[in-house]
Amino acid sequence: MAVKHEIPTYEPAPAERRLPASRAECETRDAQDALAGRRAKFALDPAVIYLDGNSLGPLTHTAARRVEGMLHGEWGRDLIKSWNVHGWIDLPKRLGAKIARLIGAKPEEVLVADSTSINLFKLAAAATRGRGTRRRIVSETGNFPTDLYVLQGLTQLSGGAAELVVVPRERLLEAINEDTFLVVLTHVHYKSGECFDMKAVTARAHAVGARMLWDLSHSVGALPVDLGASGADFAVGCTYKYLNGGPGSPAFLYVRSDLHASVEPVLTGWMGHDAPFEFSDDYRPATGMTRHRCGTPSLLAFASLEGALEAFDDLDLDDARRKSIELTELFVAIVEAGGAPAGLRLASPRESARRGSHVVFAHADGYAIMQALIARGVIGDFRAPNLLRFGFAPLYVRYVDVWDAAEALRTVVESGSYRTSPGSVRAAVT
Amino acid sequence: MAVKHEIPTYEPAPAERRLPASRAECETRDAQDALAGRRAKFALDPAVIYLDGNSLGPLTHTAARRVEGMLHGEWGRDLIKSWNVHGWIDLPKRLGAKIARLIGAKPEEVLVADSTSINLFKLAAAATRGRGTRRRIVSETGNFPTDLYVLQGLTQLSGGAAELVVVPRERLLEAINEDTFLVVLTHVHYKSGECFDMKAVTARAHAVGARMLWDLSHSVGALPVDLGASGADFAVGCTYKYLNGGPGSPAFLYVRSDLHASVEPVLTGWMGHDAPFEFSDDYRPATGMTRHRCGTPSLLAFASLEGALEAFDDLDLDDARRKSIELTELFVAIVEAGGAPAGLRLASPRESARRGSHVVFAHADGYAIMQALIARGVIGDFRAPNLLRFGFAPLYVRYVDVWDAAEALRTVVESGSYRTSPGSVRAAVT
Repeated sequence: MAVKHEIPTYEPAPAERRLPASRAECETRDAQDALAGRRAKFALDPAVIYLDGNSLGPLTHTAARRVEGMLHGEWGRDLIKSWNVHGWIDLPKRLGAKIARLIGAKPEEVLVADSTSINLFKLAAAATRGRGTRRRIVSETGNFPTDLYVLQGLTQLSGGAAELVVVPRERLLEAINEDTFLVVLTHVHYKSGECFDMKAVTARAHAVGARMLWDLSHSVGALPVDLGASGADFAVGCTYKYLNGGPGSPAFLYVRSDLHASVEPVLTGWMGHDAPFEFSDDYRPATGMTRHRCGTPSLLAFASLEGALEAFDDLDLDDARRKSIELTELFVAIVEAGGAPAGLRLASPRESARRGSHVVFAHADGYAIMQALIARGVIGDFRAPNLLRFGFAPLYVRYVDVWDAAEALRTVVESGSYRTSPGSVRAAVT
Repeated sequence: MAVKHEIPTYEPAPAERRLPASRAECETRDAQDALAGRRAKFALDPAVIYLDGNSLGPLTHTAARRVEGMLHGEWGRDLIKSWNVHGWIDLPKRLGAKIARLIGAKPEEVLVADSTSINLFKLAAAATRGRGTRRRIVSETGNFPTDLYVLQGLTQLSGGAAELVVVPRERLLEAINEDTFLVVLTHVHYKSGECFDMKAVTARAHAVGARMLWDLSHSVGALPVDLGASGADFAVGCTYKYLNGGPGSPAFLYVRSDLHASVEPVLTGWMGHDAPFEFSDDYRPATGMTRHRCGTPSLLAFASLEGALEAFDDLDLDDARRKSIELTELFVAIVEAGGAPAGLRLASPRESARRGSHVVFAHADGYAIMQALIARGVIGDFRAPNLLRFGFAPLYVRYVDVWDAAEALRTVVESGSYRTSPGSVRAAVT
């Protein structure tokens, strides 16, 4: 068993490419960009360069229209009848099928429901119930906290029958042993942006007979994910980041289709019942993913997500990935041109193939620097203790935005102007 | 121990009142109604008499405006900054405090989060963890199904350490014994409308050392509830019925304040952490109700609820209850005037003090009759196998509406016209 663990690359290193060498070249690149037309779908303030879509994606015009339509044309006018005449009842499946295309899943393998945390609990609890004599759930130190918290709560609920083993990434493969029934990892790390090789880690989990659950929150919509090819058992993910579903928009969950019948729901709500309108006293799980519904979903949030997903229609995710890599490489290149400003250090993997769609720089004065950038209209976010995080959503971030944002970062850091910046607003939620 | 169980009345029988004896008298009563002004807050089609607000409350103008404001003025314009500058982060507490006033709770005892099903799981799971050597959760046959399903899932998850005992209402007090750690009941029954005496049943639970959890889904906003006076430990409830929060709007949960520190969350998500933005690996529950947050909430749904709750500002719930009783009594009186139409039978308690704000009639052709009523613009709903359910929300249902709806019901049943009605749309969700 490997004691040293080299993180495998997510994908082959991309062919060498020439990055724009001037702002004018960025403009040219934007004009040629196959994705450029999608930017018009977003309600973006031209005075702002928004590099925090990995935390909260921006409003699209279709999301706004869809929500307004549900408010006035459905809820307001047709009231209770809307459940049927406007297909509210099937929204969780319909939206799941749309997301499936973005993560290499079959349409019937994905359901939109609840929050990422709740969905993680659902699947991890089901796996715990099916653990046999195995005791161990493995995750990594510094995984997105809610993943660890949910697993801690679950193992406590098991009364010690299951235990959570959290180790640094370099000891991960070693920790996945024959006592492990579930491995829970986030594909693209929320801080560093480093990504796992889903296929290799899933294979390791399967080699010892464990289930593999991927959190795709920082991947979906920004880079191709192929759950089917990876063989993953379970996945969950967020829709308010690169999918632009709206603040706190409902999350999704995935169960590989051959497991559908054997994975029993734990949060057994009436919407997951085989015949919810029979109103029988005894729970009988629906077939397929429907059993993983629980209570009544917040439909205005579903409407927003439905509208937002329109921006992904016919999108080639390889195009999105190619552009995302160019944007992140360009950003790093300009920030470091002639040497990074003093005190600023790249804290993401340098090799773009090992990174998602955001880039992180570390600086001891990171918080103040981010405030100064926000005051200049460049919105990224700060993550304690010292990280400046910049997300590059390929659907609406332009090459010129990257150029300007990188210049702004250099200027702020080199000038030291952040020390007297009036920044006061703290960008909060991942 | 009582083997026979008389359901105690919810409140003293109201003073004798004279019901309107003609449609003209209904109009007069509407003109004098202290609540009449609130109807203008709702976006109601004048051609429709909406008696299904106990399933999905109608849109208010403030809810629509609030959602549109969040779409364009907050999410659309201020993006990630909205978490702080628009107070998104505190919405679950702010809305909880507003609901607290309607259910006799302290502002800090109520939180808005997730769905009723999920919130019930949270509290019942916490109670299960604190059960000591007791094994029994007691509920009643025919309780709203999701309550029973959630408890079934929970007891299965406990591996048989806890068991769910479900008995008919008349054997309930007997079933609440020294082996019971939790009693879960719905205050107003979703079918019959019959209500429990919260104080008496809670006292019974406490007498044997059990915790009491009330589901207030069919009570909140329609009649006064006094959790504080009842001594209840826990409560959950729905906001898309009488509170008009919007389809699937988020639910609430209540924990009596002296239990706040000892009730440990089980669905341990990052939003319930004591310092979520520390992003530490170890879960440490927040103080107060905040610990019962889990993932990121769907904020557009919260905005809708926030707008909807404006209709309850300064509302005297005793006024609402008085009107609700008059509406339901009037409805029953007109339907039964000179004897109920053949085959139609009141299936709610006749005594209004023992009933919530909806009334149910049974008829073998109930489904077709409800379709015929809907075709005539009178919207109630059907519950298998034979129940016609009519909700009377005192904030927007008028005395004339009741008159006309009751006349329509009589006419449809007596004429037999429902046998040839073209009704095709089935009102679905409770």
